[in-house]
Amino acid sequence: MTARIFPTAQDAENAFYEALERADLEAMMAVWAEDEDVLCVHPAGPRLAGHAEIRRSWAQIFSGPARVRVHVTQQVAISGGMIAVHSVQENFSVEGAGRGDAQPAPVWATNVYLRTAAGWRMIVHHASPAPGQAQAAPREPGGGAPRKILH
Amino acid sequence: MTARIFPTAQDAENAFYEALERADLEAMMAVWAEDEDVLCVHPAGPRLAGHAEIRRSWAQIFSGPARVRVHVTQQVAISGGMIAVHSVQENFSVEGAGRGDAQPAPVWATNVYLRTAAGWRMIVHHASPAPGQAQAAPREPGGGAPRKILH
Repeated sequence: MTARIFPTAQDAENAFYEALERADLEAMMAVWAEDEDVLCVHPAGPRLAGHAEIRRSWAQIFSGPARVRVHVTQQVAISGGMIAVHSVQENFSVEGAGRGDAQPAPVWATNVYLRTAAGWRMIVHHASPAPGQAQAAPREPGGGAPRKILH
Repeated sequence: MTARIFPTAQDAENAFYEALERADLEAMMAVWAEDEDVLCVHPAGPRLAGHAEIRRSWAQIFSGPARVRVHVTQQVAISGGMIAVHSVQENFSVEGAGRGDAQPAPVWATNVYLRTAAGWRMIVHHASPAPGQAQAAPREPGGGAPRKILH
């Protein structure tokens, strides 16, 4: 497979979410920088480091039966020459799910891109569960489940 | 109060965690960039935007009775000229808590700093619950509570 060149961070981001929707592991990994420290936190998961570990996680996710559509909203993009940071909300819907089926929770993602010799590539993907609409403005920002979170 | 100048992103990060431990709102807000789009996601919370909204959230957090110590580990720092990205684990302990008391869950944070005319300042703080030691390598990276999270 010829590596794709992403002329902008936005091109890399588009490819990331296209690969996620298609559950296309090769396309997904083509978005990540090869030779850099790369980090990936899936929602509520551990921090994965390095191409191999991140690849394994996506292979596992893509091996599941669910196919999803992802609608990216509320993007804030910050760019500083070599590095671009995009903050987005990921809104998922499961293909084939019935009207009464629970939909996945939305996710906040911080995506960091690096301008490499081979174009823009992802170096950090930090995703975490976002509160639903009903909890959009909780009184206690450090909310969380049984164990206390203090900020 | 005279604004502090942070010569490096690390200086800004140190000041951020010192302010968090001291529950010092003025010191906390002095770390954040004033004139930029700034974003803050507290664990499991909404995404807050802008100095005023972020200030309110810290004021609320600091108004609580708990005083915490935070031990920052596993830092990965990426720097690209104008922007620096630090990924860390925040490990909290509550001051005065007894041996049997539950300690707060660890948190993954992605901290983004911008080199401004007034030194390095924080522009993004994205914090989310990290799995405990026992769940350090869950089989399903999209883990989560009742609602399914697909990646």
